[in-house]
Amino acid sequence: MTIPATTPEDVSAIVRRAAEAGTAWRRSTIVERVRALGAVADALDAHADELIAEAKRETHLPEPRLRGEVRRTSFQLRLFAEVLEEGTWLDARIDRADGEWPMGAPRPDLRRQLEPIGPVLVFAASNFPFAFSVAGGDTASALAAGNAVVLKAHRGHPQLSARTTTVVQDALAAAGAPRGLFDTVYGTQAGVQALKDPLIQAAAFTGSIAGGRTLFDIAASRPQPIPFYGELGSVNPAFVTRSAASERAREIVDGFVASVTGSAGQLCTKPGVLLVPADSGLDALLAAASLPAPAPLLNDGIAEGFRGAVEATASHDAVQVLAGATGTDGDPGPVLLMTTAAALRADHESLISEMFGPAALVATYDEESEMVAVASMLEGQLTATVVGSEGDAVAAELVPVLSTKAGRVLWNEWPTGVSVTWAQQHGGPYPATTAVGTTSVGAAAITRFLRPVTYQNMPDALLPPALQASNPLGIPRRIDGILTAP
Amino acid sequence: MTIPATTPEDVSAIVRRAAEAGTAWRRSTIVERVRALGAVADALDAHADELIAEAKRETHLPEPRLRGEVRRTSFQLRLFAEVLEEGTWLDARIDRADGEWPMGAPRPDLRRQLEPIGPVLVFAASNFPFAFSVAGGDTASALAAGNAVVLKAHRGHPQLSARTTTVVQDALAAAGAPRGLFDTVYGTQAGVQALKDPLIQAAAFTGSIAGGRTLFDIAASRPQPIPFYGELGSVNPAFVTRSAASERAREIVDGFVASVTGSAGQLCTKPGVLLVPADSGLDALLAAASLPAPAPLLNDGIAEGFRGAVEATASHDAVQVLAGATGTDGDPGPVLLMTTAAALRADHESLISEMFGPAALVATYDEESEMVAVASMLEGQLTATVVGSEGDAVAAELVPVLSTKAGRVLWNEWPTGVSVTWAQQHGGPYPATTAVGTTSVGAAAITRFLRPVTYQNMPDALLPPALQASNPLGIPRRIDGILTAP
Repeated sequence: MTIPATTPEDVSAIVRRAAEAGTAWRRSTIVERVRALGAVADALDAHADELIAEAKRETHLPEPRLRGEVRRTSFQLRLFAEVLEEGTWLDARIDRADGEWPMGAPRPDLRRQLEPIGPVLVFAASNFPFAFSVAGGDTASALAAGNAVVLKAHRGHPQLSARTTTVVQDALAAAGAPRGLFDTVYGTQAGVQALKDPLIQAAAFTGSIAGGRTLFDIAASRPQPIPFYGELGSVNPAFVTRSAASERAREIVDGFVASVTGSAGQLCTKPGVLLVPADSGLDALLAAASLPAPAPLLNDGIAEGFRGAVEATASHDAVQVLAGATGTDGDPGPVLLMTTAAALRADHESLISEMFGPAALVATYDEESEMVAVASMLEGQLTATVVGSEGDAVAAELVPVLSTKAGRVLWNEWPTGVSVTWAQQHGGPYPATTAVGTTSVGAAAITRFLRPVTYQNMPDALLPPALQASNPLGIPRRIDGILTAP
Repeated sequence: MTIPATTPEDVSAIVRRAAEAGTAWRRSTIVERVRALGAVADALDAHADELIAEAKRETHLPEPRLRGEVRRTSFQLRLFAEVLEEGTWLDARIDRADGEWPMGAPRPDLRRQLEPIGPVLVFAASNFPFAFSVAGGDTASALAAGNAVVLKAHRGHPQLSARTTTVVQDALAAAGAPRGLFDTVYGTQAGVQALKDPLIQAAAFTGSIAGGRTLFDIAASRPQPIPFYGELGSVNPAFVTRSAASERAREIVDGFVASVTGSAGQLCTKPGVLLVPADSGLDALLAAASLPAPAPLLNDGIAEGFRGAVEATASHDAVQVLAGATGTDGDPGPVLLMTTAAALRADHESLISEMFGPAALVATYDEESEMVAVASMLEGQLTATVVGSEGDAVAAELVPVLSTKAGRVLWNEWPTGVSVTWAQQHGGPYPATTAVGTTSVGAAAITRFLRPVTYQNMPDALLPPALQASNPLGIPRRIDGILTAP
């Protein structure tokens, strides 16, 4: 049974209901939002078995991975509940009136907090049917921030999306959230229509560069442009220093291969380019590495895109196959390609591009300075990794360059497996994302669905609680410029 | 003497030099940045007389206003120096490795801070030749954040721009900042070229809706789209309750007229629509109000635009002239137009639009609930004002609606005169701005020129100072989710 595309009339009605529910939800208390997020998390956990069974059928992802993903998803909802209670997400600032303010004119009483941005449209991802889908990170942070959410389901797992939607809606209703606060639409046209709907005030997306850019352009060309938080593509280069290669060759090869082939390479943080010293033996170890058996990819579109991307890179004059094989029939197998750092520098636009699936390009360098040269040429990345030893002089050059190119810079760990924490950053300069200032994973993600409002000379009774004199929420606030504990 | 348009070659060279200087500047210490901002502030103050004389010639703005604006501008630079020293602008977050992290997988060591976004292009405004121009708020916050700045001068005050540029450059050089960190380009094409330059990573603009939207569209359609922080247009509606009108009619009229006509109405926060109760006598007082004499506007383009906007509103069937006159020869005089709240509701798209200059539309209502209806129809605004008494039931309805429409909501004060403080918000939903999540005035403005970077498992020596174990900057940091004093 397939899910039919949502009709234009139904899309309009869903968005309108969401906007109405959002008007109530934005005035909800922190206690009410915490309860709602917890209810959704509990419901996901309670329905995990049946949801995972459906996800296995639709995505080909193995059960342990899916089970971990459900756990991550319910954890994420609970983390945002913690974020809400901690209170600094409101960024409450109180400047009391000051007749002597040195600007040259008296300062009025000004009180500023972050408020919900308005109804949010979330485009679900193919590769994380839970954590970046119906009840995923964007939904969690948008709801936490006080917004209604309309979700565009990914065509790769429609039944799971429908089933999860019911679980979320039932949980929200049981927790007392307004009806219509969360709903799902199906079909490309439904997503585009929702994105153009004047009631939608922000959109989030996880997917390909081509698809994300198309939607970004629609969001930017609306009569009222809206923020579009797209997480698109990333090569996630990794740089192995000479000393690391000589000290830990086997460990590096094992870690790299596991990171490239885990989830069949279908992770936005998969390391896609690895720079290694020539004549270090690392290339020989990689050539001999035991790669996992071919596995089905998420769907036919992704398999086809993967084959095309590998073929495009493999057919480059400067590239050979190092391990695995291209162009097999059946499921595409893991493959490692090989080139030189000199070739990367000569044609980085062709060679440094995402192959979404179990493939990576290994490039050998003669001088460590070539790594800095390649790093300087990079487009925006989600991650960049240095595999080194603490004394490496090149590391002190590489890390500052990579910090201008990537949202996360790693040392001696592999970039796959994005932990959901207070300090996580999952984003980066374009084309990694369309919104370099924000993250789609971690506690800071709530900020993207908020906007600042300042109240001037407002009577206490008309102020939102975070800004009232008695600090009824008991949160940290910046008072006359000084961060002040409750 | 006019300033020639910057040639394409010179624009490229200026942007390239800025990018190079920015690479050094992003690694500058807080102490170095504080010194540079202070040096620019001191230099502005020291050259105030000569700069103000030039500004008077080019903008027709009166000397006291210009003198206040210079003071505001140097204050703003010093406030960002204070912001830098306080340290929370870095949003430093440290999650130490945690094998028991309840997500289901061990948490690595993750450390996140905000870093410079890259070279910033600032489009100067016509109406604030100091505070929103060469050394204005966007320049100050972009430099404070660690970015190079290329400024596009406004054609309304080219000589002042050139002179101020020299003052800024000399001060930066004397403070030891890298050469090329700040420079100015002239001419519309030069601005467009710089906006398209791949090295530019963000742009800020203060000006008209038409001009701002054109530039926003260019920024969004680059191969690499960049954030465009445009502050465009705003009507800044004000709502007078029945009780306020009966208690303080004279005070309201005087305050409103002063706010509409100050700086000849050429402020982006000028109140452009005033709702008053019919039969309150407020309209009669407004009709009899003594308006200031006509004064020259900033330049011929603005005068022409103002006459056209007033004429468009005045020619509407539902509008009459309440005080002053339209269509005079010579300098356009202040004018108050009059309509009804019912007419606003019937045709808000025609009637609620910016008239940049000394004009406003007064609308009478029969029921206070009509104010809520009008508020609900508004587009995005920089400000919205309620003039009321504390017991007014309608205020409790109006304020929450206005907080969804405006970046600043005022009570019994007028919106002109934007104080530069920690809690200020100067921004709002489109078309007030193109970036609803940010402010162009106040301490929070620094955030728009920063982007987050997380370091994973990074050795202490390779971490930026804000994230090192010993907290060498002595700043507040979020450690394992808990905001921690230094």
